[in-house]
Amino acid sequence: MSDVRIDDLPVRDELRGKSPYGAPQLDVPVRLNTNENPYPLPEPLVERIAERVRDAARNLNRYPDRDAVELRTRLAEYLTDTSGHEVGLANVWAANGSNEVIQQLLQTFGGPGRTAIGFEPSYSMHGLISRGTGTGWISGPRNEDFTIDVAAAEKAIAEHRPDVVFVTTPNNPTGNAVPPQTVLALYEAAQAAKPSMVVVDEAYIEFSHGDSLLPLLDGRPNLVVSRTMSKAFGAAGLRLGYLAAHPAVVDAVQLVRLPYHLSAVTQATALAALEHTETLLGYVEQLKAERDRLVRELRATGYEVVESDANFVQFGRFEDSHTAWQKILDQGVLVRDNGIPGWLRVSAGTPEENDAFLDAVRALKKEQSQ
Amino acid sequence: MSDVRIDDLPVRDELRGKSPYGAPQLDVPVRLNTNENPYPLPEPLVERIAERVRDAARNLNRYPDRDAVELRTRLAEYLTDTSGHEVGLANVWAANGSNEVIQQLLQTFGGPGRTAIGFEPSYSMHGLISRGTGTGWISGPRNEDFTIDVAAAEKAIAEHRPDVVFVTTPNNPTGNAVPPQTVLALYEAAQAAKPSMVVVDEAYIEFSHGDSLLPLLDGRPNLVVSRTMSKAFGAAGLRLGYLAAHPAVVDAVQLVRLPYHLSAVTQATALAALEHTETLLGYVEQLKAERDRLVRELRATGYEVVESDANFVQFGRFEDSHTAWQKILDQGVLVRDNGIPGWLRVSAGTPEENDAFLDAVRALKKEQSQ
Repeated sequence: MSDVRIDDLPVRDELRGKSPYGAPQLDVPVRLNTNENPYPLPEPLVERIAERVRDAARNLNRYPDRDAVELRTRLAEYLTDTSGHEVGLANVWAANGSNEVIQQLLQTFGGPGRTAIGFEPSYSMHGLISRGTGTGWISGPRNEDFTIDVAAAEKAIAEHRPDVVFVTTPNNPTGNAVPPQTVLALYEAAQAAKPSMVVVDEAYIEFSHGDSLLPLLDGRPNLVVSRTMSKAFGAAGLRLGYLAAHPAVVDAVQLVRLPYHLSAVTQATALAALEHTETLLGYVEQLKAERDRLVRELRATGYEVVESDANFVQFGRFEDSHTAWQKILDQGVLVRDNGIPGWLRVSAGTPEENDAFLDAVRALKKEQSQ
Repeated sequence: MSDVRIDDLPVRDELRGKSPYGAPQLDVPVRLNTNENPYPLPEPLVERIAERVRDAARNLNRYPDRDAVELRTRLAEYLTDTSGHEVGLANVWAANGSNEVIQQLLQTFGGPGRTAIGFEPSYSMHGLISRGTGTGWISGPRNEDFTIDVAAAEKAIAEHRPDVVFVTTPNNPTGNAVPPQTVLALYEAAQAAKPSMVVVDEAYIEFSHGDSLLPLLDGRPNLVVSRTMSKAFGAAGLRLGYLAAHPAVVDAVQLVRLPYHLSAVTQATALAALEHTETLLGYVEQLKAERDRLVRELRATGYEVVESDANFVQFGRFEDSHTAWQKILDQGVLVRDNGIPGWLRVSAGTPEENDAFLDAVRALKKEQSQ
């Protein structure tokens, strides 16, 4: 028995020899590797969560609201308030993290015999969830400076005629935002080729210098904007992702969602957090200032930095980024090696964490120039 | 825009014309349609949940424990304590409801180009999640009395060579348990045919007169037992399902699980509930007594009843079960029409709820015999 391994089981062929996705979880003083918000929730919000969950627990023997109506209503209000674009309950859907939102979208619009495209490097889960749902994955091109080459992207869409097009803005792991006109051009190309769904992943949009692309939803039923409470709301542990789209899209994902997928405690906790939006967005402003400081200081130290609209910064270049990652780790700071040759990614932490990171990379630069 | 419907979107062909799965949610005095546990969690447990979630919320800006080690350890202890079969952390995996457990199993062992079989009528989500994961679904046979016809089942397995075999015990919606020797025979047939995975769905096992099939895991790496906290733990709103299997199976599902799929609040709430196992299993004993009373009284009233090892009872027969369902509903009691001609299903509620149900079905019987 003890010698049975994964590959001895009748697993799908494409899973053989694979390892689970996930950043290394190392116990170091300063962890700036997973784009978490470094600010714990304020204590009044913690108390409100306990209160809301206590109420929910009194009814926990019952299935949760399958349609999460109150939560979706509050999320719609948040989107309307922050974007100026009117979004209602019927436009919003929520799930366990934006990963599950994306999985449901791919089960609905992708799947066996269909394909999805992303412009890489980008959020690697788009490709992984595509494969997990049997959707063929097409790795689209990106410029050397990590912007999207519109002509090349249009050509790839025309050639491959994908069923789903992913655009991540601000892009992860590079940090740069995608201009609205680029998204519009890709949407037009996708409609001309198939038509296909275009999913704009705005996980980090609250940290952007620019605006959300929500207003583009008007008149574009094949456009979806996905969001998360993991970053701006400082709630990575909550696993609450959501999308805004035409009501028909919200109806469609309900054909594939697992019934009662969103627990009563998740709904209660998210509702509590949404009551404290103003405080949480205050932390976002602090993080944006720290992010801008990281960009400035990294450049001042002689690093190349990709313009960042997110709560993280991609910096380089290194002859060997894995060795650089290890040297920074040796100084007690964990950053992320996303496998992009020459580059590393650092999440904006607290001022103290960022100081520790900047000390580490200054020391590294000094060592390299000796 | 307002006239865009699901079918105007580029959804997958097999989703066209479909409706979302889910029992009708009607606001009636007595709801006995979704096999919920009628007993709210005891107040000390509600307080403990609030306390545990408060602690988790203080760290909510961080991703949850991706591997849910503490929770899986406690679940393993619960299984060991209640089955007498030694189960450890490495044997247990948890997800958002047993539906997600089943989805992960099908993504790992089923999927495009593969098939799964169940013996119907049984839990309809097995077929729905199979389709949702691109797994071909084979509807296997069952006897007139809703037991599994072993010879016919073995023949179906030999003929179709499915990759995944579902056995639900106690079966839902019929209530009857499957004898261990039947599961063993199906396991042998499945190994001879392919080999394939056998998933024993024990969602209702705590209500059974018999024992869990967990001891069968010994020496059978292709066997999986799935469980839920929705029923015996009175926590349908929590969405916590889990499985026990060979450690290689637990390793394998981690190749397809979405990273950080299980939120910190879900883990905290489930851990609190596990601290109160003894009290909750006390409610299970009350429900078993009420279930046995329902069986007795229904028979005394002249109904046919399937022997039940679950917290619900299938009863009949009706010339037109939908009309009977409506007449019971007219008396303020919601039961479930699972589409099995001639039969309806009632969940065991509180003594008062069950009295209301029994009054309704006695009145119905009187009306029919006039």
